Amino acid sequence: MTRQERAARTRCELVRAAAAQFERQGYVSTTLNGICRQVGVSSGALHFHFASKAALADVIEQVTSSTLQRLISTSRPRRAGALQELVDISQLLVARMSDDQIIRSGVRLSQDTSRQGRLPFRQEWRAHVLALLEEARADGSLAPTVKVADAASAITLATEGAMNFGREDRQWPAVSSMAGFWRLMLPQLAGADYAERMDPTGTVL
Amino acid sequence: MTRQERAARTRCELVRAAAAQFERQGYVSTTLNGICRQVGVSSGALHFHFASKAALADVIEQVTSSTLQRLISTSRPRRAGALQELVDISQLLVARMSDDQIIRSGVRLSQDTSRQGRLPFRQEWRAHVLALLEEARADGSLAPTVKVADAASAITLATEGAMNFGREDRQWPAVSSMAGFWRLMLPQLAGADYAERMDPTGTVL
Repeated sequence: MTRQERAARTRCELVRAAAAQFERQGYVSTTLNGICRQVGVSSGALHFHFASKAALADVIEQVTSSTLQRLISTSRPRRAGALQELVDISQLLVARMSDDQIIRSGVRLSQDTSRQGRLPFRQEWRAHVLALLEEARADGSLAPTVKVADAASAITLATEGAMNFGREDRQWPAVSSMAGFWRLMLPQLAGADYAERMDPTGTVL
Repeated sequence: MTRQERAARTRCELVRAAAAQFERQGYVSTTLNGICRQVGVSSGALHFHFASKAALADVIEQVTSSTLQRLISTSRPRRAGALQELVDISQLLVARMSDDQIIRSGVRLSQDTSRQGRLPFRQEWRAHVLALLEEARADGSLAPTVKVADAASAITLATEGAMNFGREDRQWPAVSSMAGFWRLMLPQLAGADYAERMDPTGTVL
């Protein structure tokens, strides 16, 4: 392993350790010493990579934001209209939150009122839900009788709830609970030509 | 005002100031000095009422838990079956979270991993949702085709989301968003004899 490879690996381990400690004990109670101890490096080695605890938190929040943005903006084949795309993305989001400690920690940091510089991930998600519902109205996968505002409320509430539960209790069945929500919601939301084809568990997991 | 009345008022102001500061800056960053400054009392006066910051947090969490438990367990006339009762209680919960800083602070404290002794309010709420859905199945307000587990998932996700949004953004229209959720969900959930009578905005606000 070259010197650069070792440095990259240490940097990565520092971010993971910080994410674990921020998640477990919150931003304020986490110390740089505790992170060094977990990784097994000196305080000098940490400072070679990160100037401060705030710098570590910023990296975690940025990784989270770009990961979630990529997940939202990746274009996938629209086999069953924009409404199915919304089901699929919601399940990806919720699964990612359950599986990935850096993402969980980043979302928690973005809600931590004791820090500055929070990224507006949730506003972006709400805007994306609205945009996909407008697309679904246009392609016919959203039934013409449904009010977009009601559908947006219901979907944003459920994903917020699932991301919150998935963050706090890793044993909680986030993906199957979201599927329960979609199983009840889709017959109400889906346009006539799409109703039979919709998959409430998502088509991408 | 008697001496006892003054003491009761100071105690109340200390709890309200602590709730405000816990909510704004989190448990760890809040100091007893900051709470004294906000109320305009000496550190001795605070210690006459509360031994520590943890004691203040415990009081807030207990007030929250007993308020929410009372809200859940108060028996109301069942004009439109147990399903309407579930709509009503969810709206009361969400409204309370938006209006009452002590409740918001208590729910936040109950999720704060940096503290010990968290009250299991959310588990109680999930159990109550399940119990009301079973009642709704028995009284016919829940349609026989709906799986109780799916309905419980959808309702718990939405209320969790609404309580979370309502806590973080006081401008966010929590009650009308829950109404949007219920407007879409009720035609799917309600039994034939009840469908016409259901009110998605709740009958108690």
